[in-house]
Amino acid sequence: MNKDRSELLLASIKRLLRRGATKQLKNILKKTHMADLSGVFRELSPDNRQKLFDLIDSPEEKGILFSKLEESTFVDFVKTLQVENLVDIFEQMPADDAAELLNRLDEDTSDQILQKMKNEDSTSVEHLMSYGDDTAGSIMVPDFVALQEDMGAREVIEALQNKYLDVEMPFYIYVTDEYGKLVGVSSLRQLVVVHPEKPLKEFMATDLVTVRPYMDREEVAKLVSKYDYLALPVVDDDNKMVGIVTVDDVIDVLHDSATEDILRMAGVGEDFVETQTIFRGTRIRLPWLFASFLGGVAAFFIIGGFEESLTKYTSLAAFIPVIMGMGGNIGTQSSTIVVRGLATGKINVRDFGQVVSKELAIGFILGIVYGLFIGVVASVAYREEVYFLQLAVSVGLAVLSSMAVAALVGSVIPLFFEKVKIDPAVATGPFVTTSVDIVSVLCYFSIATALLGI
Amino acid sequence: MNKDRSELLLASIKRLLRRGATKQLKNILKKTHMADLSGVFRELSPDNRQKLFDLIDSPEEKGILFSKLEESTFVDFVKTLQVENLVDIFEQMPADDAAELLNRLDEDTSDQILQKMKNEDSTSVEHLMSYGDDTAGSIMVPDFVALQEDMGAREVIEALQNKYLDVEMPFYIYVTDEYGKLVGVSSLRQLVVVHPEKPLKEFMATDLVTVRPYMDREEVAKLVSKYDYLALPVVDDDNKMVGIVTVDDVIDVLHDSATEDILRMAGVGEDFVETQTIFRGTRIRLPWLFASFLGGVAAFFIIGGFEESLTKYTSLAAFIPVIMGMGGNIGTQSSTIVVRGLATGKINVRDFGQVVSKELAIGFILGIVYGLFIGVVASVAYREEVYFLQLAVSVGLAVLSSMAVAALVGSVIPLFFEKVKIDPAVATGPFVTTSVDIVSVLCYFSIATALLGI
Repeated sequence: MNKDRSELLLASIKRLLRRGATKQLKNILKKTHMADLSGVFRELSPDNRQKLFDLIDSPEEKGILFSKLEESTFVDFVKTLQVENLVDIFEQMPADDAAELLNRLDEDTSDQILQKMKNEDSTSVEHLMSYGDDTAGSIMVPDFVALQEDMGAREVIEALQNKYLDVEMPFYIYVTDEYGKLVGVSSLRQLVVVHPEKPLKEFMATDLVTVRPYMDREEVAKLVSKYDYLALPVVDDDNKMVGIVTVDDVIDVLHDSATEDILRMAGVGEDFVETQTIFRGTRIRLPWLFASFLGGVAAFFIIGGFEESLTKYTSLAAFIPVIMGMGGNIGTQSSTIVVRGLATGKINVRDFGQVVSKELAIGFILGIVYGLFIGVVASVAYREEVYFLQLAVSVGLAVLSSMAVAALVGSVIPLFFEKVKIDPAVATGPFVTTSVDIVSVLCYFSIATALLGI
Repeated sequence: MNKDRSELLLASIKRLLRRGATKQLKNILKKTHMADLSGVFRELSPDNRQKLFDLIDSPEEKGILFSKLEESTFVDFVKTLQVENLVDIFEQMPADDAAELLNRLDEDTSDQILQKMKNEDSTSVEHLMSYGDDTAGSIMVPDFVALQEDMGAREVIEALQNKYLDVEMPFYIYVTDEYGKLVGVSSLRQLVVVHPEKPLKEFMATDLVTVRPYMDREEVAKLVSKYDYLALPVVDDDNKMVGIVTVDDVIDVLHDSATEDILRMAGVGEDFVETQTIFRGTRIRLPWLFASFLGGVAAFFIIGGFEESLTKYTSLAAFIPVIMGMGGNIGTQSSTIVVRGLATGKINVRDFGQVVSKELAIGFILGIVYGLFIGVVASVAYREEVYFLQLAVSVGLAVLSSMAVAALVGSVIPLFFEKVKIDPAVATGPFVTTSVDIVSVLCYFSIATALLGI
């Protein structure tokens, strides 16, 4: 649904709510996907949210709406509902979605809901909740088809049609041995092309990719994406299947994790804070900026050490911004490439020498280009001074060294963090900007002091 | 496959290649997924690549390897192969993968391959290639199940088992009217739960989400992710189906597009250039840095205008880095949040006032915090000068105004670009850094000159 259509939907729903046109609202709700309604929901007053929500007939649809709402909207809205009304909705939801949503609520509320849910439903939800937020376990579903290896193709098809009706999408038929251990997998298509009496073990594929329930879900997402599977089996220590992770849950993880990475790189937390309070937004950004503050203070003391040079040649001050800016920007470019390369697997710590020397080369070439540019600006601006040539050369060399060093630092730091197993996306930003600031200023004033013979 | 295992695989394959142990190599190849082999391939010499490649038996597997190789490795390797050997591989590949890979080769080579392919294969590949790189058409497959609305459930199941064996994963059964127009969709599960004689039109779902072949594939990916579908039908202007886009192709698009966004924001191009030449890497980064260069030159002229102040109070120069750094960093944070929020749909241009005022508030609060910090540093460092208080207040106010303005600029600029339909990820970075640099320096020297009474 594009922007115009979603604005239109919002406008009509608001108008109908004002008029209390229940019948028309119900009609609209029937034709609207809950994913679209979630956008409308965000823009409504608490009162109107309640009214609209009550008009949704099925608890399944209400559940889909819940899982499509933004975290803060969901939490705010659920607070206004009675626990009794929630129980029914959570019972009808897929267990993995229910677990994820209940984890977002405070413990009191989620406990109350779980207690009132049917035993069989709450058990499987609590089981998933126990794996913790970022694991394969938290996004797996218990609905899969697992059959014994001796079963023939025809028997399997019959079982699918009778016993496994509740499995929404039987992507794969998993095959177990007599002890219940996972030994193979077959696709629906294979079932219909082989001889009806052929047992699973004779045509199943045995090169399985499996995951454990405690595996990080970003890792799981990468596996699904790498091997192009529609689902991966989750197995316990005995190689018995406990669930599957399907591609649609993985899409959300990939989507979220890329955004998380970007936000972490800029030092603005993992979650998307824009929908949260000013106070939280401030608190999260404080530490990253503190690193930059320390770098600035260090630069202050360095420049203070060159006071004599500055008194003699005040014009030196005017070039500080361009030298720091050029260094800072190329440092960010190099570190972005390396951090992202490491995250997507396109760069490996093994490639250290190759990556760093390449970044250094690029920094050097760009440093020569922009060093010449700024040298020309300096010599034109100060053409009437006797020291104009020395100044131009100093500034040019300072840009060159600042850019080369920044490219070097920007590529070495994330590789170093990866090596010592610290997430490069978190740590790289502050270290790179801080050290580039310090190095740029130091290079500049050392070169200028030497060349101008102060 | 984790890093240790992939290093192990590389080591064994290298050793066996040295020994010329063909039989063992063939054994390993049989057990290794081509997605894993692609990592090994990158590390081998051209000679060894050729040897290993020749040992892969089936053209299907070779095709999977091709599609898993990085673009540059793929292009380099294909150059060393005979066109005759390629034809077979491309014929066996899914049409969408073949189209994508052929688009990467130079026109001469891809034309030669297409000419030698069987007519039916090359036609469908050329058709997909004609849609252009980033469209839904380029990632769709022509393998789908579409049946007339009058068919009964049992008839449909029989058709699936007989006629549609070549459809790898019949996620959905699409339903057409007598003119071949798409009117509904049914799932496999529905087919087996309804009465066998019930016609499709009586139980199909009619709220369809369809896409056009020329739609941007990132948009398609967002739709799949939003609605949790496993596939979306692609229809032409007459609402006739021309293909489907499946979730596994969309995963790759989402993965790539997040990385593209990050790289664009840092001004290092869209594609991952680390695997390419130094020359290209340099050329791509040049323009972004030029914006930063212009900002630096502007700052140079501004500072030049305050030469009198600087001559009188040389110490002013020492605070330039911290003021620019704090402004620059918070500007990056704000713009990252807004650019990312716009890309993921969590922020809307409609929310302009709310988003900007929040960022401004955060910038203001953080500006007060760090303004106080830097004020303390300044008054301690210059406690013996008579003007220490004025200096401390100037510097503190400069940090405050620089941070507040940077947060404002950092949030307004991407929202503005979104409004005028320019991709905020591309344009935001240079504009924000450049304008923050200029504004910071201007605020600082204006405040200092006024307060110090120069």
